[in-house]
Amino acid sequence: MARINDNYLRLKSGYLFSEIARRVKEFQGAHPDAKLIRLGIGDATQPLPPAIVAALHAAVDEMARAETFRGYGPETGYEFLTELIAKHDYGARGVTIAPDEIFVSDGSKSDAANFQELFSPDAVVALTDPVYPVYLDSNVMAGRAGAPDARGGYDRIVYLPCTAENRFDPPLPERAVDMVYLCFPNNPTGAVLGRAAFKRWVDWARGAGAVLLYDAAYEGYIQDPDIPHSIFEIEGARQVAVEFRSYSKTAGFTGTRCAYTVVPKDLTARSASGEAVPLHGLWFRRQSTKFNGAPYVIQRAAAAVYTPEGGTQVRAIIDFYMENARLIREGLEAAGLTVYGGRNAPYIWVKTPAGLDSWGFFDKLLNEAHVVGTPGAGFGRSGEGYFRLTGFGNRASTEEAVARIKSRLKR
Amino acid sequence: MARINDNYLRLKSGYLFSEIARRVKEFQGAHPDAKLIRLGIGDATQPLPPAIVAALHAAVDEMARAETFRGYGPETGYEFLTELIAKHDYGARGVTIAPDEIFVSDGSKSDAANFQELFSPDAVVALTDPVYPVYLDSNVMAGRAGAPDARGGYDRIVYLPCTAENRFDPPLPERAVDMVYLCFPNNPTGAVLGRAAFKRWVDWARGAGAVLLYDAAYEGYIQDPDIPHSIFEIEGARQVAVEFRSYSKTAGFTGTRCAYTVVPKDLTARSASGEAVPLHGLWFRRQSTKFNGAPYVIQRAAAAVYTPEGGTQVRAIIDFYMENARLIREGLEAAGLTVYGGRNAPYIWVKTPAGLDSWGFFDKLLNEAHVVGTPGAGFGRSGEGYFRLTGFGNRASTEEAVARIKSRLKR
Repeated sequence: MARINDNYLRLKSGYLFSEIARRVKEFQGAHPDAKLIRLGIGDATQPLPPAIVAALHAAVDEMARAETFRGYGPETGYEFLTELIAKHDYGARGVTIAPDEIFVSDGSKSDAANFQELFSPDAVVALTDPVYPVYLDSNVMAGRAGAPDARGGYDRIVYLPCTAENRFDPPLPERAVDMVYLCFPNNPTGAVLGRAAFKRWVDWARGAGAVLLYDAAYEGYIQDPDIPHSIFEIEGARQVAVEFRSYSKTAGFTGTRCAYTVVPKDLTARSASGEAVPLHGLWFRRQSTKFNGAPYVIQRAAAAVYTPEGGTQVRAIIDFYMENARLIREGLEAAGLTVYGGRNAPYIWVKTPAGLDSWGFFDKLLNEAHVVGTPGAGFGRSGEGYFRLTGFGNRASTEEAVARIKSRLKR
Repeated sequence: MARINDNYLRLKSGYLFSEIARRVKEFQGAHPDAKLIRLGIGDATQPLPPAIVAALHAAVDEMARAETFRGYGPETGYEFLTELIAKHDYGARGVTIAPDEIFVSDGSKSDAANFQELFSPDAVVALTDPVYPVYLDSNVMAGRAGAPDARGGYDRIVYLPCTAENRFDPPLPERAVDMVYLCFPNNPTGAVLGRAAFKRWVDWARGAGAVLLYDAAYEGYIQDPDIPHSIFEIEGARQVAVEFRSYSKTAGFTGTRCAYTVVPKDLTARSASGEAVPLHGLWFRRQSTKFNGAPYVIQRAAAAVYTPEGGTQVRAIIDFYMENARLIREGLEAAGLTVYGGRNAPYIWVKTPAGLDSWGFFDKLLNEAHVVGTPGAGFGRSGEGYFRLTGFGNRASTEEAVARIKSRLKR
């Protein structure tokens, strides 16, 4: 009988969101009149801006006429989009990225999950803790995580704790690792890395021969002009890093699906025979074999982000979410809570009050303020004692939630 | 230094299409006035039909308003689409498939390439020969193909030759295999399987404990009412098969990107401990970890295929391509060539004339008729001595190409 990939059996079940749903349902059963507000979501709520809507309609009309219809496109993205990305997202910051180093896709989740395929099954992976679960789970499936350990992790993963004690700035790995996933501005902590911290990582990776898998999905939320938006702003990064970028949290593409990954041609890893093999060619082969490109109309929508109107409208969406984040951050501080993030990121990372763990605070917030958030422990063991709220709600709900937390949360 | 996945180095380079491009360029350099016609493409050329265009515009307008905006959707597809698929593509043929056994995706290429992840790295794979290269290459990348062998294949792949001698009907594997890729109507041969042949495969798989990965991307082209459209029309198939379906070649979605895969809940494979594990749960976990769903607007477009107008318009597109296929088939027969396919499939599989191999016929057709096709040898060693033409051109070019072949091809 056919044999399964047994690594799948080592995945932990999706406990976090099902447990949230279970507790919310139980609460609603007991309090049918309570009006719940969800501030835990990491999903866009603002509609697509007008410039993008207009580009979509125009592209749909192109698909309706034989003369302008588009069939299969380049698996790695149309040049009209990769050239705009190279110019606006990199060139404008003084970073030289060639259009053919940019691989357009259906989402950073896909890219961040798939990129590990290029590495040896016995490569050692380092992850910040807490972490976006996709980095971990995709490596569990590939057999790189090893066996579950006694502390709720996996024995072959190198965890880099990020807590208030180290200002959510991950330490360099203490043992040899081959791949490191970094996401800044960070989901879930809202932390950012300054230029010096980026340089420390790039220099370390160059010395260690490691590859940095840098997820910049939230770079659009950076407000501080001193914080790098791209790892390629750091000298030497082209030899050691790839960068994942997404339109999901900027232009509201969570349901529209477009992202890209930058793989510099200078980035190599070693074959069994010791040869340095460019990852650019391997990723090109992976994408052209297993993917057929993002839809033409969606790539046209992404291109509209780079028009003057599109840029202004996208900036307004980010400003809107960041104003929500400010309201939450300041409101929670006024309520006596200790909060992190929310300044260069849409995520607010709340320290749970003394005596309450992540789930304890979840229950307190639900019962006293009728507000639903996300327990930090769900993102990894170093997330225990923290709680995630987000700026992705609408304004009235966000204000109401903050008012309730201030007035109803028992000290 | 980080180590690559060495299996990638065992991939053969994409020789076929680059060699076609090289020969065409050389010809054009020598004959700048020759008007080339490309009949080798497997890509839609007819525009999206009006019902689908209208659905796209309506869905884009939904995305423009906060009240109807959609963020993240279900990773496995919206119910509005899976319910239509279950009803129209299966229920209407007397096949019961539950909506949650249907996984909507961005394309059958992705699904056919990714599904192998669920199996053990040492599973044995059988492929028809000639074959769509994605089935092979995705398994080479996963390490299942073994080493290149002396005959241009891989030593762990079980090849099932499909030639005129066996009427392009693949033989059952002679040794133990775990996974078999089947595609009917076939790309590239245009062959179909009748009910008895399907039953032979399902019965064999049940006895052998193998899984059939059935690619039905071209089922819309079936004209003969006795030919099954789905492997699930065969009793017992739910325990041994998955089915890949696509809107690419029916509704013209090659650049719009939507497909689905059916994974019955009864289908299992064995874990290391001998337990029967449902592949449905593993595929759900794979898709929800590594994919974020097809775009909302594209799923709405796919749903329009199931409206009365959409259905009629899609049928007209298929009829159009099939008329092209008939013109090619009859024209080539009139020119004295032996042709297969083109009756229930958009592909015409031409036997190269005595004394010419696939590339020899490519050169002859290019030089004498200025027509570009695809050498059969590019699809595998059993494709040697054959040549692929397709019905996906426009009418005038197709007629002109056939006229040239009839009048200019030297006997």
